[in-house]
Amino acid sequence: MSHAIIFDTDPGVDDAQAIAIALRHPDIELLGLTTTYGNVDVETATHNALLLSELAGREIPVAQGAAGPMVKPRHAPPKHIHGGNGLGNIPLPDVKGKADPRSAAQFIVDTVNARPGEVTLVAVGPVGNLAAALQLAPDLVDKVKQVVVMGGSIREGGNVTPVAEANMFNDPDAAARVLTAGWPLALVGLDVTHRCVLTPAHMARIEAGQGELGKVLAGSYAFYRDFYQEFLGIDGCCPHDSCALAWLLRPDLFTTAPGHLMVATEGAAEGQTIFAPQGRGFIEPRWSQTPIVEACLEVDGEAVVEWITDTLA
Amino acid sequence: MSHAIIFDTDPGVDDAQAIAIALRHPDIELLGLTTTYGNVDVETATHNALLLSELAGREIPVAQGAAGPMVKPRHAPPKHIHGGNGLGNIPLPDVKGKADPRSAAQFIVDTVNARPGEVTLVAVGPVGNLAAALQLAPDLVDKVKQVVVMGGSIREGGNVTPVAEANMFNDPDAAARVLTAGWPLALVGLDVTHRCVLTPAHMARIEAGQGELGKVLAGSYAFYRDFYQEFLGIDGCCPHDSCALAWLLRPDLFTTAPGHLMVATEGAAEGQTIFAPQGRGFIEPRWSQTPIVEACLEVDGEAVVEWITDTLA
Repeated sequence: MSHAIIFDTDPGVDDAQAIAIALRHPDIELLGLTTTYGNVDVETATHNALLLSELAGREIPVAQGAAGPMVKPRHAPPKHIHGGNGLGNIPLPDVKGKADPRSAAQFIVDTVNARPGEVTLVAVGPVGNLAAALQLAPDLVDKVKQVVVMGGSIREGGNVTPVAEANMFNDPDAAARVLTAGWPLALVGLDVTHRCVLTPAHMARIEAGQGELGKVLAGSYAFYRDFYQEFLGIDGCCPHDSCALAWLLRPDLFTTAPGHLMVATEGAAEGQTIFAPQGRGFIEPRWSQTPIVEACLEVDGEAVVEWITDTLA
Repeated sequence: MSHAIIFDTDPGVDDAQAIAIALRHPDIELLGLTTTYGNVDVETATHNALLLSELAGREIPVAQGAAGPMVKPRHAPPKHIHGGNGLGNIPLPDVKGKADPRSAAQFIVDTVNARPGEVTLVAVGPVGNLAAALQLAPDLVDKVKQVVVMGGSIREGGNVTPVAEANMFNDPDAAARVLTAGWPLALVGLDVTHRCVLTPAHMARIEAGQGELGKVLAGSYAFYRDFYQEFLGIDGCCPHDSCALAWLLRPDLFTTAPGHLMVATEGAAEGQTIFAPQGRGFIEPRWSQTPIVEACLEVDGEAVVEWITDTLA
């Protein structure tokens, strides 16, 4: 089955790999890339989205979106993880193309309206563009095919706070809006992405299979890998954003559960995704009143990494 | 080594068992029971504390404390778990003794001041009495030997909300005060108490070893067991409160980690304990600024249940 997707992204090293998958996989029709701040500032995200498409020899619309959160002040980009240029500080070729004149939110609305019921939104950064699209057109909830969000954590704990994952923490207000909007949504969070480790051997296969794009993927991976070695003590990287596409194309590799999500927007738990399994009672009904979503809880991590590598090799 | 303790409690079926341990164990000097609302209202808690001591043939001071939370409205007692009388709705004998005229908080302050550096506070309900004692005498933090709190959850999820444990949820403001006060503190939460299951066979041994008190422990356990069967699908009960004493006397059965605790007091995460392991960096320093405590993360659950049973049999 082919999936027509808009890929909302803040590239970012792991974003770049996921974009390569979206460009390459025969069952993905990539309708456009929409960009947001997050791993980098939004101008850099747009530059990188254009560049990655061009390196793959493709002309994909790129629409620039949020430069910061909906409500809160912006956090500085994590240059120690993705590099100041988002791609591990490797030298990058010039970009020839230009971004679409529309905002990311308008691009999403127009594209979904052109093909109602057919378009899947895959968001792998802070989700402000999806929130902004809902603000422009609340009826998107009935027009998208589904929404896949890489973000959050149910039982795994956080990566930027003890309980919050980076994308959700970067704009908890947008996350609260998007995760409770009532559209068909799957959350692909740290509970599964932390079970997937892409090793240097996998990356060597990917580099060999991706031509000019492969050099950028491998060069930026080397920088990202240093972060994982220094801060997490593992030799390899978690391909967070590619996991969102793995869920879309190989849901059989994941264990999910239906339930209600809330996002803490204030206080010590800011940015945490709080999941109430469907049918489980709690002391008050408030945790069980948001729309049902699917949350990824377990994964065959090795199989996902093989799928990523096979797709790109 | 002998431990002089004040046991702060809302009995409660599992409280009753823990009180029996505190009354029986040769290495515990039980200086007093202080009572709080929680599993029951505070008058019932006081009645039960007096009763359990008398059934064991002991005269232990009982000082009544908080009838509700520090700030928030009170939640109704969970009659479906502990029964309306806190002891599984079994018929109970009359009580002969009377409570100490002092408040629980004043009793704690006086008792600790009489033996500075020697007294351990073991709290197994909402921790309002400890917070009130700190309000009367902030220097308690330097005068207690240590504080053991049964409550909270680090990775296990909650039991009354998706993320909050009942004692902490019942008074998150008190919990925030007590868990960050800067006294030597250990948190014994659901991460370990949910690994301990006391079966009917264990309870039969306890009943046989405890005379009149044993009849109350076994009768109330039968009611509590029904709750576990119906709502959690296990045949047996988690002896939450006894685990706090197990940690005190058999810390070798537990794996703990030092770190910083915060308690969410508002919003969807209300009552959640948020733990930042010592030395782990996060995006902002705010999670690593509260005093270091020890949090229980793992346990040999079978050994704890054997220890409980051997103590009481």
